Amino acid sequence: MKIAFVIYDNVTLLDFAGAYDPLTRLKTMGFMPDLTYDICARKECIRSAEGAELSADRVGCDLSSYDYVIIPGGEGIQQLMKDPAFLRWISVASEKTTVAAVCGGSLLLGAAGLLRTRKATTHPRLMNILENFVGDVSTDRIVDEGNIITAGGVTAAIDLGLYLCEKIAGAEVRGKIQVQMDYRCYRIV
Amino acid sequence: MKIAFVIYDNVTLLDFAGAYDPLTRLKTMGFMPDLTYDICARKECIRSAEGAELSADRVGCDLSSYDYVIIPGGEGIQQLMKDPAFLRWISVASEKTTVAAVCGGSLLLGAAGLLRTRKATTHPRLMNILENFVGDVSTDRIVDEGNIITAGGVTAAIDLGLYLCEKIAGAEVRGKIQVQMDYRCYRIV
Repeated sequence: MKIAFVIYDNVTLLDFAGAYDPLTRLKTMGFMPDLTYDICARKECIRSAEGAELSADRVGCDLSSYDYVIIPGGEGIQQLMKDPAFLRWISVASEKTTVAAVCGGSLLLGAAGLLRTRKATTHPRLMNILENFVGDVSTDRIVDEGNIITAGGVTAAIDLGLYLCEKIAGAEVRGKIQVQMDYRCYRIV
Repeated sequence: MKIAFVIYDNVTLLDFAGAYDPLTRLKTMGFMPDLTYDICARKECIRSAEGAELSADRVGCDLSSYDYVIIPGGEGIQQLMKDPAFLRWISVASEKTTVAAVCGGSLLLGAAGLLRTRKATTHPRLMNILENFVGDVSTDRIVDEGNIITAGGVTAAIDLGLYLCEKIAGAEVRGKIQVQMDYRCYRIV
């Protein structure tokens, strides 16, 4: 099992960290010792929307070699939605892996043409933009369309991470991770 | 208004990012244009407990020059609780500023001797260690003792961040930030 966490300049740090925490606990809490995960970007070092500087573990790697690819949102999506190379990078992933997007990350999937016949969700304030790209807009916290999963705004990253923990390792493991995160409102909408 | 976000090797990324997101929105959403904030560490680059590499904005800076100092938890506290230089660094801050700790960060305040006559909280699984250092252990999500504030485990960082937003800028601003974070369970215990 391999998970890629995509980051880019002007990503919202919590969009990334919210999913990164529960999913990496699959390994750090001993449930899946063989799990590996990488922070993936198109350059070595990125600066978040808030100004935090974060290093990538892998640069420009083949995202299709991962089982799950997690795509956060953030101001940076404005540029990336018009960046064919970036959109190609994440599109390739969608052919073989499960791609899961949080918040504005859904708009990246939309701009890449991956949501045309799908139901999808995003940040409540981005719904009107998402409408241009999807078959069916949803206000659900998480929308699971098989190999494309989308989630609501910012803190929905935590719910998405826990949701994927359950999908990967079952409800009992998800529950233990949730307790360790002291998170008392899984999927409250 | 100046806020310091402390990080260190083996910090839990979400402990940091959970408070960093709402508090930095005080500036990025335009409520407090003059707010400044720094990520502060004792070295230039740290690696989180999960393996993420993060750069500090300031190294070994004088924490007492900030209005708020935020201290996250993570495995790294095991070493830091025995590190007199680190404990001195955060102790100096407590004399002039408000220090707010999340999760295992409370144990750092405890080891620094800052909680002896205080009520404080931490991660539910760390309560028995915190007992050694404090006047009164609480299971509340947030405990506000004036210039020392403590919060529960990991995701309590988000509640702490929002709580401080309200303390600094009022309930209306906190509400707007919470909506933008798509966070629907502020201080649910």
